[in-house]
Amino acid sequence: MLLNSMKNRRSVRKYADRSVSDSLLNELFEVAARASNTGNMQLYSVVVTRDKANKEKQAPLHFNQKMATEAPVVLTFCADANRFVKWAANRKAEAGFNNLQTFIAATIDAMLFAQAFCYAAEARGLGICFLGTTAYNADKFIKEFKLPRLVVPVVAVTAGYPAEPLPPHTERLPLAAIVHKEEYADFTPESINALYKDKEELEVNIQYVKENNKETLAQVFTDVRYTKQNNEYFSDVFLQVLKDQGFLQ
Amino acid sequence: MLLNSMKNRRSVRKYADRSVSDSLLNELFEVAARASNTGNMQLYSVVVTRDKANKEKQAPLHFNQKMATEAPVVLTFCADANRFVKWAANRKAEAGFNNLQTFIAATIDAMLFAQAFCYAAEARGLGICFLGTTAYNADKFIKEFKLPRLVVPVVAVTAGYPAEPLPPHTERLPLAAIVHKEEYADFTPESINALYKDKEELEVNIQYVKENNKETLAQVFTDVRYTKQNNEYFSDVFLQVLKDQGFLQ
Repeated sequence: MLLNSMKNRRSVRKYADRSVSDSLLNELFEVAARASNTGNMQLYSVVVTRDKANKEKQAPLHFNQKMATEAPVVLTFCADANRFVKWAANRKAEAGFNNLQTFIAATIDAMLFAQAFCYAAEARGLGICFLGTTAYNADKFIKEFKLPRLVVPVVAVTAGYPAEPLPPHTERLPLAAIVHKEEYADFTPESINALYKDKEELEVNIQYVKENNKETLAQVFTDVRYTKQNNEYFSDVFLQVLKDQGFLQ
Repeated sequence: MLLNSMKNRRSVRKYADRSVSDSLLNELFEVAARASNTGNMQLYSVVVTRDKANKEKQAPLHFNQKMATEAPVVLTFCADANRFVKWAANRKAEAGFNNLQTFIAATIDAMLFAQAFCYAAEARGLGICFLGTTAYNADKFIKEFKLPRLVVPVVAVTAGYPAEPLPPHTERLPLAAIVHKEEYADFTPESINALYKDKEELEVNIQYVKENNKETLAQVFTDVRYTKQNNEYFSDVFLQVLKDQGFLQ
């Protein structure tokens, strides 16, 4: 039953005009906090945005994706060593947490908490969508949320009751593209062809190539959606964020 | 119902002598692959370790935590841009994915997939435990699994049917330590005292301080479990891994 609902889930970008109560959010956070985390240090935090003006200020940072303003709630999940380090400082302990490994541990914690929240939310009838734009504009979200040193926003989630009709399912690659036994079986042109065949032959993806005036589906990703230039620009931003927030010397 | 099981979950480090079938694993991977991911690029992969000799080779890399050899299955989840880039190269497309932002996106994808797998596994009666040691020894796991460029192991999960009795629940901080409204409310010595009081007064944590001959619980973390020296050493390892695997120039 649970597996069926997990299997039938899809990201939801359009929401019904119905609010999400604080008591429901708190229940979901309580459940999500049972997620695994590094050494039970809980190196994560979440900023809840409900205020309309705040959502509108954040909209351009999410590339004006509509769900960032239309969802009743936007949750920004952060890798957070600040609370732990402040606790230590108040307990005659000095945490050596201003480094990359702590950032990775905190990112793991933040993602486990975020994903746990999302499954709990879906079990209560909400729909969610992840916003990867958070890490692109981490510097600006830090200012917006007044995040202290050792806190870095990693991902945001929009949440609300889904508008009908539900969006269609998107395709996934066959498991053979993802699962390796004992060691990594690297790909050949032949295995790539076999694994991507169904995806490339989907009508929706054929249309996607046409609309973008490209020759292949891969080119839509590399030339339009995730360009080298953008990736490199936002990588520089993120590297500077890691330095400014104290996770990288 | 689902929320109850998510709320009552705990990490499981001791497993019954009962195998986990390939068909069950595949079912769980199929469900987990429905997790959200960056632009439907699925920038993740997983290496399944069942072979006893392989588990024993990996044991020291997981600091000889017993569950790494005693669990029937160990799953190592990787941030993976290799498959996507190879697909692009075979489709007249050049992916500019050798950068930090792609590593972050791929880490997000890997963590969402890993956590989805774990909830699916728990719904089918399995117990799981995360192994954060994976990122510490990422260089050695790369050799062990023969991971190509643009693949970095992020976290591992041990899985199996739980041995009875189930381990006790571990405590969590109050939500006020985690949830911020509209902007980040930083902590004061007073709020730290209030948020950590229950944790510090737990008998199990008082014992933990005594056993480690420390004065405060925080010192157990900073001086014994997550020392500055170790954090810095493993940060250097990870930085070099990001460079060697092509995610950082």
